[in-house]
Amino acid sequence: MRTDCHVCRAEGLAPRAQVLITAGERRVQATLFQIEGNLLAPGEVGLSEAGWKLLGVEEGDQAHVSHPPNLESMSSVRRRIYGNRLDGVSFEAIVNDVVGGRYTDVHLAAFLTASSAMPLDEDETIHLTRAMVAAGDRLDWKAPIVVDKHSIGGLPGNRTTPIVVAIVTALGLVMPKTSSRAITSPAGTADTMETLTAVDLDLATLRHVVEAEGGCLAWGGAVRLSPADDIFIRIERVLDVDTEGQLIASVLSKKIAAGSTHVVIDVPVGATAKVRTDEAGRSLGERLVKVAAKFGLTAVCLQSDGAQPVGRGVGPALEAHDVLAVLQGAPGAPSDLRHSACTLAGAALEIGKIAKPGEGYAAANAALEDGRAWQKFQRICMAQGGLRVPPKAAHMRPLRASRAGRVVHMNNRKISRLAKLAGAPDAKAAGLRMEVRLGDEVFAGQPLLMVHAETLGELAYAFDYAEQSVDIIQVES
Amino acid sequence: MRTDCHVCRAEGLAPRAQVLITAGERRVQATLFQIEGNLLAPGEVGLSEAGWKLLGVEEGDQAHVSHPPNLESMSSVRRRIYGNRLDGVSFEAIVNDVVGGRYTDVHLAAFLTASSAMPLDEDETIHLTRAMVAAGDRLDWKAPIVVDKHSIGGLPGNRTTPIVVAIVTALGLVMPKTSSRAITSPAGTADTMETLTAVDLDLATLRHVVEAEGGCLAWGGAVRLSPADDIFIRIERVLDVDTEGQLIASVLSKKIAAGSTHVVIDVPVGATAKVRTDEAGRSLGERLVKVAAKFGLTAVCLQSDGAQPVGRGVGPALEAHDVLAVLQGAPGAPSDLRHSACTLAGAALEIGKIAKPGEGYAAANAALEDGRAWQKFQRICMAQGGLRVPPKAAHMRPLRASRAGRVVHMNNRKISRLAKLAGAPDAKAAGLRMEVRLGDEVFAGQPLLMVHAETLGELAYAFDYAEQSVDIIQVES
Repeated sequence: MRTDCHVCRAEGLAPRAQVLITAGERRVQATLFQIEGNLLAPGEVGLSEAGWKLLGVEEGDQAHVSHPPNLESMSSVRRRIYGNRLDGVSFEAIVNDVVGGRYTDVHLAAFLTASSAMPLDEDETIHLTRAMVAAGDRLDWKAPIVVDKHSIGGLPGNRTTPIVVAIVTALGLVMPKTSSRAITSPAGTADTMETLTAVDLDLATLRHVVEAEGGCLAWGGAVRLSPADDIFIRIERVLDVDTEGQLIASVLSKKIAAGSTHVVIDVPVGATAKVRTDEAGRSLGERLVKVAAKFGLTAVCLQSDGAQPVGRGVGPALEAHDVLAVLQGAPGAPSDLRHSACTLAGAALEIGKIAKPGEGYAAANAALEDGRAWQKFQRICMAQGGLRVPPKAAHMRPLRASRAGRVVHMNNRKISRLAKLAGAPDAKAAGLRMEVRLGDEVFAGQPLLMVHAETLGELAYAFDYAEQSVDIIQVES
Repeated sequence: MRTDCHVCRAEGLAPRAQVLITAGERRVQATLFQIEGNLLAPGEVGLSEAGWKLLGVEEGDQAHVSHPPNLESMSSVRRRIYGNRLDGVSFEAIVNDVVGGRYTDVHLAAFLTASSAMPLDEDETIHLTRAMVAAGDRLDWKAPIVVDKHSIGGLPGNRTTPIVVAIVTALGLVMPKTSSRAITSPAGTADTMETLTAVDLDLATLRHVVEAEGGCLAWGGAVRLSPADDIFIRIERVLDVDTEGQLIASVLSKKIAAGSTHVVIDVPVGATAKVRTDEAGRSLGERLVKVAAKFGLTAVCLQSDGAQPVGRGVGPALEAHDVLAVLQGAPGAPSDLRHSACTLAGAALEIGKIAKPGEGYAAANAALEDGRAWQKFQRICMAQGGLRVPPKAAHMRPLRASRAGRVVHMNNRKISRLAKLAGAPDAKAAGLRMEVRLGDEVFAGQPLLMVHAETLGELAYAFDYAEQSVDIIQVES
């Protein structure tokens, strides 16, 4: 709005004030920015793209701007700031206001900080999880057992999901898997799957695929599963604050809303992974299992090696090539990715009563060996709209060892950053291909990884970073 | 920036990301918003008014946009979120980053919430106060005793400062008073004084006035006293969180930076005032005095009646008329305002060793009686650029009692809001004139207060609110 707008003056609206914009039946809460000059005529309001869409207005329509209604649930947040625990009704009111867009970033930061300064106890974690489930859509698959899979914290290249879905659905379980696109990582499962098939399915198509094949590998955007989660995660990322209670509510609310009855959770542990010690992983696992049980959800947590990327590729298409290699049993398929996928699929087969305890891994491995998983994967992709060939990058350049020695450390965070600078995930073919593993002996000048980019500019950009950061892959003589 | 800008893509800059903009030697940290369409040409960046000014750039200049440097001091904030107390070095780093504009609202909210969830202890309050003083300018008046005055929480109409300054400087104390403009209230001391004289003084003029008259009544904008305070207050207001430690650091950092050696603090106590009980007022007073002493600042806290507005007027010019009436000893001058001013001035005279203990009030009263305070006030105004006649509003309308009875309650917050809706503080003549006091017997239809406005539109606007809010002034039969 203009600084001299009579509404701003009369209502005392200052820059960054929250305002309620009403147009006909629709309303949206927004942050006010003010301008001088004639970009807006007197009495005119400019809107963000989201604002135009949410209000359903067009140029020249009338809108009414006023103070937003009082945010009642903030009194619960204040109570918690002052050291009181909250009940289910309070969490429900908070989450509803969050999902309704009535919390600004400042309110969100206060809520999340207050829930960290005095960590959520078990009851509160359950209340928050329940409120987050209730604030979104909830799917029902009319099946006694619906399995899901989750990995805590992105380890680059850890693209087990497509393989796990192929294996367990090939063996008869129902696994209607919806995944996200990358937010901060070089690839999400949806980004990788998009190089192999269509993932942008509406709910009807998604249901149809699952009915026909027992599973899917779709993007979750068509359904609003725990929408509060995405909002909280954005602020937690800014603050770099992530406490156990919030993490548990985040993971479980999505799974419960997705209609899962059984879930296998992968917990990579490593110095540059999200979970850094075995002990922390165990404690998190125990709490996850306990809270999940309150919602009738059977969870099993498996720790895995988070010291280095899994597989060779990092980036949508590069990971898809790894997935195909494992499914097709190709020579040179990354054995660590295969092993991780079989471990997780095996656990799913066991809790899903398809395999006896201790026999899940072998059953999963057999489904890969004899091609059943690869057959099933192709059928799912066909049902989603056809199998695609993942692209290959036009430009590649090796990052070479500066000296001879042994590979002693890999920095997962920097590896992710390098892949992103090369263009992933927007540039589907971009990313990295790892050429060494921890413990390998290398000679000076030996390629440690290959940077793939779609343009020479992005390749140069990534290399600028690689040459400044000595410890992406550490070699000691 | 444009969503398709190659910098956004290569750097992975998403909407609301923090960015560092560099132009020549200057740099500013900003929040990124993205647009589609052709308002910006490819490679162009749009800036806020503040951005243009801080960078000192013009249309067509080159700017470089990148990720901001890592915010090291947030690791201290995170440590405090997780329950650890902070030392002086940590508070210094935090406050420097805050004043340097490197904390977003999300970071600020986390810091303030973490300092509330586990309240600041005495050491931390001292560390924070010291860091806030150090982050701004600091004045030195070359006088052994420099007095100041502060009121906790705005009570409408409580405009004692001009009277206190006139009295104590007339009696020989040094009181270089700088005040703020209204932020959320219908008038700040600077707004009221601006209807009486020039308040927008640069530091040289301000020093000249104080040398000549022993005091001034200026706006504090020319000096950067505890600049972190204004930033914290903006976020605390959004959260409606205001803890004792923050409040103490806020009040004292401004006074210490202003070069004060002695300060009298008014603590209005009332149901709709900031401090609600005598006990809370006492405890706050004790902590204020204790922390002040650590900085060699002698503080005295006085509780006052915060049950209703002080004086008659609420709004810049209406309060100025009250101030003039008290200073001039006019018949009908508000006795409560006079009493409050004499109490505070008396305390200042006592701690400033001008009056013996117990004799300050009488000395202050005498300076009003015999015209010395009024003479001094005029001299200060002349030194600041001349005495002005406060304006009167073109439009007035009474808010009448809906029934006969006794005035039992006044809502200070709603009274402030009503005055603001009438146009205060931007419309200098706008606001309210209170026509009754608590305990008065009124007849149905008797004016409870008079709304003053500069335009009929604002008068109507205020009345809409007054007629919806039954309990601005409560009358019980």
